[in-house]
Amino acid sequence: MPSRKLRPGEIAAELPTTFDAGLYFIGRLRTPWARREDCPKNSGESQAVCTIELDPRYADGLRDVETVSHLIVLYFMDEAARDILLQAPNHYKRPHGAFALRSPARPNPIACSVVRLLRVEGTQLEVLGLDCRDGTPLLDLKPYFASIDAVPQAIVGWHAEEQG
Amino acid sequence: MPSRKLRPGEIAAELPTTFDAGLYFIGRLRTPWARREDCPKNSGESQAVCTIELDPRYADGLRDVETVSHLIVLYFMDEAARDILLQAPNHYKRPHGAFALRSPARPNPIACSVVRLLRVEGTQLEVLGLDCRDGTPLLDLKPYFASIDAVPQAIVGWHAEEQG
Repeated sequence: MPSRKLRPGEIAAELPTTFDAGLYFIGRLRTPWARREDCPKNSGESQAVCTIELDPRYADGLRDVETVSHLIVLYFMDEAARDILLQAPNHYKRPHGAFALRSPARPNPIACSVVRLLRVEGTQLEVLGLDCRDGTPLLDLKPYFASIDAVPQAIVGWHAEEQG
Repeated sequence: MPSRKLRPGEIAAELPTTFDAGLYFIGRLRTPWARREDCPKNSGESQAVCTIELDPRYADGLRDVETVSHLIVLYFMDEAARDILLQAPNHYKRPHGAFALRSPARPNPIACSVVRLLRVEGTQLEVLGLDCRDGTPLLDLKPYFASIDAVPQAIVGWHAEEQG
């Protein structure tokens, strides 16, 4: 049985019965949005200053992070359905695959956001560019390297077509 | 006890005794490198064509992926130590925090690589830009949106200084 009522055109997968690996929640993201419905549709629509609270157990991992201008933040979208593969979000004209969307709903609901780092104070990081619910579990922080991560010419064909 | 012998200057964390969430391995990455030691140091150093083999169970999630020029690939670095927070890789002059490095060793060893999509054939995707071991478990595929993911002006201060 799918994890939520399917919309017309949607298809859900039968997920495996066991997991293959485990995740630690290493902190929490503090944002102005208490519920999922309140969140901006994507990080480009938000200029709110948010706080990443790292569990002090991992404090040693922050050495030199303050020299980084932008971070890749991986976090766990713990309210997302994991089984809906063909999805029909209300704001698009037709269904698209989970792997062609940035929707939270996917087999491993891990989001990947690029944020601007404003300040590090102990294990708290002030950043610009998050768009998730307050209290969202943090999975990882990585330095953003323009040389490997920036592809300004990248194109999402179906999206350009829906907008055009 | 740390998961591998620490190098001088390194610090390991005491990890929690239980996981907070689970991951599904949704496919495998096929690359020319059988062992971790053979892999290029980063994706910028590799122009090998690699194949992403998605488990056919998730095939419906690929709808419209063929219209995307670049994908974000999340994969699980299953041979990495998870507890080493302050790290002294051989190719850097001094130790840096795991969250200031793209090293596989981190509490949640999830890599995030941007690849160019060459071709989709069924549940096999030919891509350019992977640098991991053959057989590495796949966690997620996302379309790369230049509007939110491309930050050409990003700076990693400690790295620029070590190179400079």
